[in-house]
Amino acid sequence: MPLTRKKALELRSLAQKKARDERGLFVAEGFRLVKDAAESAFEIPEVFFTPEFESTPAGSTLAGALRARGARCERVSAREFAGFADTMHAQGILALVLKKPASAGDLMDRVPLPALLVALDGIADPGNLGTVIRTCDWFAAGGILLGRSSVDVYNPKVVRATMGGIFHVPVATGIDLPAAAARARQQGYKVYVADPSADLFETDLHFTERSLLAFGNEAHGISPELARVADARVAIRRFGSAESLNVGVACGIFLAAHRRCFP
Amino acid sequence: MPLTRKKALELRSLAQKKARDERGLFVAEGFRLVKDAAESAFEIPEVFFTPEFESTPAGSTLAGALRARGARCERVSAREFAGFADTMHAQGILALVLKKPASAGDLMDRVPLPALLVALDGIADPGNLGTVIRTCDWFAAGGILLGRSSVDVYNPKVVRATMGGIFHVPVATGIDLPAAAARARQQGYKVYVADPSADLFETDLHFTERSLLAFGNEAHGISPELARVADARVAIRRFGSAESLNVGVACGIFLAAHRRCFP
Repeated sequence: MPLTRKKALELRSLAQKKARDERGLFVAEGFRLVKDAAESAFEIPEVFFTPEFESTPAGSTLAGALRARGARCERVSAREFAGFADTMHAQGILALVLKKPASAGDLMDRVPLPALLVALDGIADPGNLGTVIRTCDWFAAGGILLGRSSVDVYNPKVVRATMGGIFHVPVATGIDLPAAAARARQQGYKVYVADPSADLFETDLHFTERSLLAFGNEAHGISPELARVADARVAIRRFGSAESLNVGVACGIFLAAHRRCFP
Repeated sequence: MPLTRKKALELRSLAQKKARDERGLFVAEGFRLVKDAAESAFEIPEVFFTPEFESTPAGSTLAGALRARGARCERVSAREFAGFADTMHAQGILALVLKKPASAGDLMDRVPLPALLVALDGIADPGNLGTVIRTCDWFAAGGILLGRSSVDVYNPKVVRATMGGIFHVPVATGIDLPAAAARARQQGYKVYVADPSADLFETDLHFTERSLLAFGNEAHGISPELARVADARVAIRRFGSAESLNVGVACGIFLAAHRRCFP
């Protein structure tokens, strides 16, 4: 049965933040992402796939798992699928996933020790946000506090760049970061802000058992309001002449340094 | 005087590798990149900028510096500029830069100790290659050996993502990496390949004074031919559930680990 025009429009609309916010949904596309979603605790109300997808052994297994967890599965033609898929090579499967927002308070309270929360203050590039989430997933950081001026975490490019991390790393969105950092300090967190001009280096830093590490916007860095709340400004030691590191790369180096503090 | 149609076509053609190869040129766009080019030893035969660009103090200073180093400067209207600029916000300046290819042998011989060369085996994403070069610039790695199946280093997206690193980090392109790695070993280099499944971790690794560190394609990793030549497979210790790290992030963590070996 062909997808109704209304349904196709609705699916395409989820490329826009407004529609995602209204419906509380986001889109996961491609075999790996949908498999990660299926293996997570996220709710998956609806899945769309092509007959070609379901005809492969791996596709058929995943479709079965999705049906078993209650997702409504709709078969659509490859042509219809191409009409609403976001990527060129979408592999013929796409899931609608219910957002599962965490609160900043949840993250601060529930993270096991050594607790490391990452705060992102105005990240603009979807690929960068996705890479940070993927990196937090690798190092099992406790979660991400996403400031109000950051790109939407449910943006399809972000979701794709997380490589499944969106289903593993709790993200609290729309956070007033100076207020959250102040609250974290009251709860025993030490607040670090990444700043290439700082003279405390990641190699000398001993992270405390409860740490909040903030990264700023790609071009403008940390906002003055957030910097004011911080306990320390920290940098990665520079040997050459680059002005800065990519925020995902900086995050990876700091997260590796954090893990070295708790062997 | 308006740009001739022929000139505009020629500039646009440099978005293609074939034209860049034939002319031995690539394009640097925007204030920061062109400034980095002007301060480097790269030859800049020709620059195009708008009157608006030259009317700012910083623009006028840069235009003067470019003239002083012998670049032919052409003023073009904002409208003409938009017709051949690659980025949306190109800031009204664009330089043609002569490629300055290094040879693998040069890099192996000339790098000061501790020598670290990075080899890239089939990097496909321009942003990733640019980020690796930017990261090598930060850590002052000795240079990059770029395998034959990698994206072109002079691709405009790569150049932009290097954030000026293209003018600081020597890159040898079109390299037969298994042969180069074998030769490096003869010259006293130890060859490491990044492999998430290895059981030697960056935290335990003591890099030797001459090190070659290879990263593979984003999806397929290191080629078997290159893996066979390696002295050791190395991984970044994983704590969570991500399958892999972004190659730029992995490169940053290894380069920071390398620097810790030579305090």
